[in-house]
Amino acid sequence: MAHGEGDECMENGMDGLVPREMERNSSSFFEDKEMGMKEPLLRRRITTNTTSQLAIVGTNVCHIESLDYEIVENDLYKEDWRSREKIQIFQYVVLKWTLALLIGVSTGLVGFFNNLAVENIAGFKLLLTSNLMVENRYHEAFMMYAGCNLILAAAAAALCAYLAPAAAGSGIPEVKAYLNGVDAHSILAPSTLFVKILGSIGGVAAGFVVGKEGPMVHTGACIASFLGQGGSRKYHLTWKWLRFFKNDRDRRDLITCGAAAGVAAAFRAPVGGVLFALEEAASWWRSALLWRTFFTTAVVAVVLRTCIDFCRSGRCGLFGQGGLIMFDLSSSITTYGTPDLIAVVGLGIVGGLFGSLYNFLVDKILRTYSIINERGAPFKILLTVAISLLTSCCSYGLPWLVKCTPCPPDAQDQCPSIGRSGNYKNFRCPPNHYNDLASLFLNTNDDAIRNLFSGGTDNEFYISSLFIFFVGVYCLGIVTYGIAIPSGLFIPVILSGASYGRLVGTILGPMSKLDKGLFALLGAASFLGGTMRMTVSVCVILLELTNDLLMLPLIMLVLLTSKTVADCFNKGVYDQIVKMKGLPFLETHAEPYMRNLVASDVVSGPLITLYGIEKVGNIVNALKLTGHNGFPVINEPPFSDAPELCGLVLRSHLLVLLKGKRLFTKDRVPTGSSDVLRRFGAFDFAKAGSGKGVKLGDLDINQEEMEMFVDLHPITNRSPYTVVETMSLAKAAVLFRDLGLRHLCVVPKTPGRPPIVGILTRHDFMQEHILGLFPNIKQHR
Amino acid sequence: MAHGEGDECMENGMDGLVPREMERNSSSFFEDKEMGMKEPLLRRRITTNTTSQLAIVGTNVCHIESLDYEIVENDLYKEDWRSREKIQIFQYVVLKWTLALLIGVSTGLVGFFNNLAVENIAGFKLLLTSNLMVENRYHEAFMMYAGCNLILAAAAAALCAYLAPAAAGSGIPEVKAYLNGVDAHSILAPSTLFVKILGSIGGVAAGFVVGKEGPMVHTGACIASFLGQGGSRKYHLTWKWLRFFKNDRDRRDLITCGAAAGVAAAFRAPVGGVLFALEEAASWWRSALLWRTFFTTAVVAVVLRTCIDFCRSGRCGLFGQGGLIMFDLSSSITTYGTPDLIAVVGLGIVGGLFGSLYNFLVDKILRTYSIINERGAPFKILLTVAISLLTSCCSYGLPWLVKCTPCPPDAQDQCPSIGRSGNYKNFRCPPNHYNDLASLFLNTNDDAIRNLFSGGTDNEFYISSLFIFFVGVYCLGIVTYGIAIPSGLFIPVILSGASYGRLVGTILGPMSKLDKGLFALLGAASFLGGTMRMTVSVCVILLELTNDLLMLPLIMLVLLTSKTVADCFNKGVYDQIVKMKGLPFLETHAEPYMRNLVASDVVSGPLITLYGIEKVGNIVNALKLTGHNGFPVINEPPFSDAPELCGLVLRSHLLVLLKGKRLFTKDRVPTGSSDVLRRFGAFDFAKAGSGKGVKLGDLDINQEEMEMFVDLHPITNRSPYTVVETMSLAKAAVLFRDLGLRHLCVVPKTPGRPPIVGILTRHDFMQEHILGLFPNIKQHR
Repeated sequence: MAHGEGDECMENGMDGLVPREMERNSSSFFEDKEMGMKEPLLRRRITTNTTSQLAIVGTNVCHIESLDYEIVENDLYKEDWRSREKIQIFQYVVLKWTLALLIGVSTGLVGFFNNLAVENIAGFKLLLTSNLMVENRYHEAFMMYAGCNLILAAAAAALCAYLAPAAAGSGIPEVKAYLNGVDAHSILAPSTLFVKILGSIGGVAAGFVVGKEGPMVHTGACIASFLGQGGSRKYHLTWKWLRFFKNDRDRRDLITCGAAAGVAAAFRAPVGGVLFALEEAASWWRSALLWRTFFTTAVVAVVLRTCIDFCRSGRCGLFGQGGLIMFDLSSSITTYGTPDLIAVVGLGIVGGLFGSLYNFLVDKILRTYSIINERGAPFKILLTVAISLLTSCCSYGLPWLVKCTPCPPDAQDQCPSIGRSGNYKNFRCPPNHYNDLASLFLNTNDDAIRNLFSGGTDNEFYISSLFIFFVGVYCLGIVTYGIAIPSGLFIPVILSGASYGRLVGTILGPMSKLDKGLFALLGAASFLGGTMRMTVSVCVILLELTNDLLMLPLIMLVLLTSKTVADCFNKGVYDQIVKMKGLPFLETHAEPYMRNLVASDVVSGPLITLYGIEKVGNIVNALKLTGHNGFPVINEPPFSDAPELCGLVLRSHLLVLLKGKRLFTKDRVPTGSSDVLRRFGAFDFAKAGSGKGVKLGDLDINQEEMEMFVDLHPITNRSPYTVVETMSLAKAAVLFRDLGLRHLCVVPKTPGRPPIVGILTRHDFMQEHILGLFPNIKQHR
Repeated sequence: MAHGEGDECMENGMDGLVPREMERNSSSFFEDKEMGMKEPLLRRRITTNTTSQLAIVGTNVCHIESLDYEIVENDLYKEDWRSREKIQIFQYVVLKWTLALLIGVSTGLVGFFNNLAVENIAGFKLLLTSNLMVENRYHEAFMMYAGCNLILAAAAAALCAYLAPAAAGSGIPEVKAYLNGVDAHSILAPSTLFVKILGSIGGVAAGFVVGKEGPMVHTGACIASFLGQGGSRKYHLTWKWLRFFKNDRDRRDLITCGAAAGVAAAFRAPVGGVLFALEEAASWWRSALLWRTFFTTAVVAVVLRTCIDFCRSGRCGLFGQGGLIMFDLSSSITTYGTPDLIAVVGLGIVGGLFGSLYNFLVDKILRTYSIINERGAPFKILLTVAISLLTSCCSYGLPWLVKCTPCPPDAQDQCPSIGRSGNYKNFRCPPNHYNDLASLFLNTNDDAIRNLFSGGTDNEFYISSLFIFFVGVYCLGIVTYGIAIPSGLFIPVILSGASYGRLVGTILGPMSKLDKGLFALLGAASFLGGTMRMTVSVCVILLELTNDLLMLPLIMLVLLTSKTVADCFNKGVYDQIVKMKGLPFLETHAEPYMRNLVASDVVSGPLITLYGIEKVGNIVNALKLTGHNGFPVINEPPFSDAPELCGLVLRSHLLVLLKGKRLFTKDRVPTGSSDVLRRFGAFDFAKAGSGKGVKLGDLDINQEEMEMFVDLHPITNRSPYTVVETMSLAKAAVLFRDLGLRHLCVVPKTPGRPPIVGILTRHDFMQEHILGLFPNIKQHR
């Protein structure tokens, strides 16, 4: 599934009536060879017009088809609907809920497995290291520690680089783009799923400052896609019943459920998962979806709970009760006064600044790394190894800088702790002493967060230690995102935010009555608000993590402040990555400058139209010459009084029709739609999985057949949405976006001209395209 | 503001190109004299066509104008936008957030005041009653109790009946309809706000089985509307700066914030408030709204917290810590096994059945009561008084049926308690004994719920007492909704659900390890799921109420079960009330039978069009003859090559133009849009508040002026959304709904005909309208 084989997506290629160079494989950010430092990937690519087929073959960004509405009007779909309603509606509903259940169960199990593996591997690694340290064999301990990290990191990077480059990174931007209608290459393929799971375990266990949350969201989406397609056809796992779900809408609904399940599994936050899907992931939302997503995340919660109950008796090795991050803060005092509120707002402002700086630096780092990554798989692994060594050095080396602290007499946890995770790490201190920096650095990320959040331990950490940890984690988090492993952004952000918050809390000292653990939580919230720019979902996730509702107003306040501050500087980190990857993401709102343009301004010829009953040769040529996914169909006399727009026919449907050959006629005569239904199966025209449809190369049409005719009416969408050419572009954009269209026909205002002016597609609404046509439009008023 | 004065809404009257009898006042359900028992109000009304102005004057259901997009294209609006962007964008943003802040603060304060008043009045009432009982003066105690209730109830009903009939009932259906685009008469008027606040206090304090949640939502919406309009012009409270918000979109956003703030204030559930606004209230959602709503509810939470802190020292009379319902369940054990899960699912199934039965009975009761209510205000008061007496008899009489119970030695609360709220009510028992039924009945609703939810008190209530209470509260809740007081549905449903759950829990006894208080919570969840059909928001509200996240999976499970079961029988209670009130609510999804119709099927003439430069007399006639809110404008030669659709002009804009008279010309010549701008203020054409625009009667045009011409181009929306006449009605409905349109132009498919076929409006998509035209369409396939 490496790049270059991208012809799978051919039938889903870029739309647009200007034949343009199709995009090359950008499934993984790191794959792109000609990526620049300063400009988004997209703008560079749209350079020259070429109509050769090669350009089409190179395509890999497939658009999801629009909502059902776009195809509902062709006769065939009506037939589908009819048959479905008569006998299979029950089957459909049952399947829908069964799938939601299955997604929930699988994602829950995968999430649990992920945690189990990480806890055991990382715990074992830490155990070995500290055993060596106890024997004062510090060099060997470091070798052991760094070696383990290195092996795990290299394994994860190798998997990623060779097997599924799309599995690198967070995955949330890609899922978000998919739900917006951009189907990046192999982003939901089974191989990606496989690598994402294993790579995430390797990456987190290797001690990187990365999280498992983004990867879990991606994993959930992959699982949903896998189950919804009835498994992989490549590996002969298809399940025929699932043909009902072979349309974009059902598929997108499943992916949304999967993404929500991923968050629910990562954070044990079922409501947070639903809200995440609503606030961040989904571009189109329906209330029915709320309901189904909620069900899926509830299943995840039950599955996780069952698994953890199973492990409570110690049957899961080193997997402890805190395997899934869950910080119980409910003990801490939550009364606060005006000075506390001021402190919290200040925390939010600085958190917002740090958060937007984080986004800025991540952007820079990603662009720098891509230069290395695009040189090939070995370089990716090399980079990962280098970062792994850096991380190991920091984790093992920095704790040497601080001195040992005597254990507090009233410590609730064991002090000092030796071995795996836990608070009050002994490191190389005398008995009854602990190294506070080692408690943070030489630990799993989850445990470090737990230690930072822990309440009633106000004097555990020195200001200097917290400062070192904050700087270290902030920098490590930035340099780590971008290497070729599945890496979430939540945990680095929470980690640096929590250390920042605790640092502020410790500096304020007795000036604030708030618990230092609560300060850490608020710091984490401020960083999350500053980078992710999510509000309600982050708030609910934090609530579900910490299990205390009394601090809700404080969390809301800090989130509001930090998001407001950060919004002054740049966009959210996921939006930024989407943009940088050059995915044609459609924004919710029309840009103000679109008000000064009309629809026909951005649409441009030559327009290729087909007649209602068209010569086969012409169709094949049209398919060969362009990469368009939709062709307008014109009726001319004698089939109508005057030339009129009959509708829109999709490339994929044309290919199925041509492949079937069953409706070719010698003369220009209409064939009824009943004929089509008799000769084609009801689901022949259903949307195939990503890259699984009929290809142009599959057609085998001889010269004689080229001269025959075929009636396109039965497969034509008879009522496509249209706008008049003088419609303002802003309003056309609203129509296009809100209805989730893929093609929007532009018709002339005055009669007496050809019945269609052009077709607006996603790319015509992209800022790059419009600025290319009207460079000064933004200045114009 | 009683019915009959409804000409205020004239410019917002029903749309539709068939002149039809306009709807009569249905601002309050109980106002309608000709309401039938079996059919919705709407169908009866659309009976005869009349083009007289009288029909228009009677109208009262005003549609909110569509989203900005509909008017964005006329020159004037562009100018607005331009001036706004240049100098006032900052002012706008600051105002937007200030308004959100103000809404939050006011709603929080009102919510607190509401609680304070209720607790003090009801507490004082209960104190007097129990003091008399301690002296064995039982008859006097009853007289005192029933008398207080009666006075409060009559006062609330009198306010409602005479001052603001729209304040009766929950208010959530009306707010929901408003956000869908249906502006029912005076539903957000200042008088409604006033009565809603006082009436709700009276109703709850009178011991009715009603809640303050629905009224709080309505109150929040009214406050938002009041603030957003810059106060009431009637009472000279207008604030000029707020002219920016004189458009539908900003107004709707404010109302959404207000509704969310209302829930947040009622339940102290800020996140629940946001989700309620998202899941139940809003029809169109934007992510920017999430953000602002979240801010508003956060403010509410902070305000409430501050107020409660203020009261903690006892400065608020009888207002206790539990003034705002908040049940701390976190002490109860939350481990559960498979039998518990089965019990929970069973609870959900039966809860769903009871919930849908509740909806069915509420529907029946509302229809019955309306016969009484429509006879006039005295009858409304009489009905309220009757129900008040019934409630008093039940509350005071039923506890006599059960015997006294000795106080448990380990009771955490005082036992027995005398006086106001509390657990373990003494009633007429010997010392150290309590009457368990009196603890529920002779108490405030909030305290009754708290007692039912209380954990660790497994044996407090007998099965028989719980059964009596369940039956009593279930029936009282049903007969109470529909009387002329502000009455929420949440508390009755939670109350009966909690007693049902606790009953089931007590019956199961030792078979389940779950706490009985938890059973009560789950029962409440099952009833809420069964009646309201909300999922995520109810779940989060319950979580925020009970402050325990560990039982989340159980609550989710029970909600899912009960909603699924109840959905088999009928719709949610709010949807049902919206339908019964005959509000033309636009559903999210197109109905399946719409697939068999095309746009031109439901549109019907005669169509009244205006020319681009039209004679004043013709415009006045068009305005007089029809109640249409939009008129298509046609350009004819010599102003265009062929007759073409220029756009759509709104009735309200025409009225402003005619009232101004400044642009009348002797000849048919175009006036530039700059002329309009020079002669009219920038905000003259902004949407006036409900019923505050120019009326047809305000025009004073003499015969000479009638013969003059006026150029409509500057106020014409030049690019209205259009569909071809052969577009399937289902797709047209999707377009209409998703874009929030008010008018949708239907254009001919083939040239050579008039450039517009008709205009689709909200009513053309109503089932009643379509079934009137095609009675058998539902059977057709």
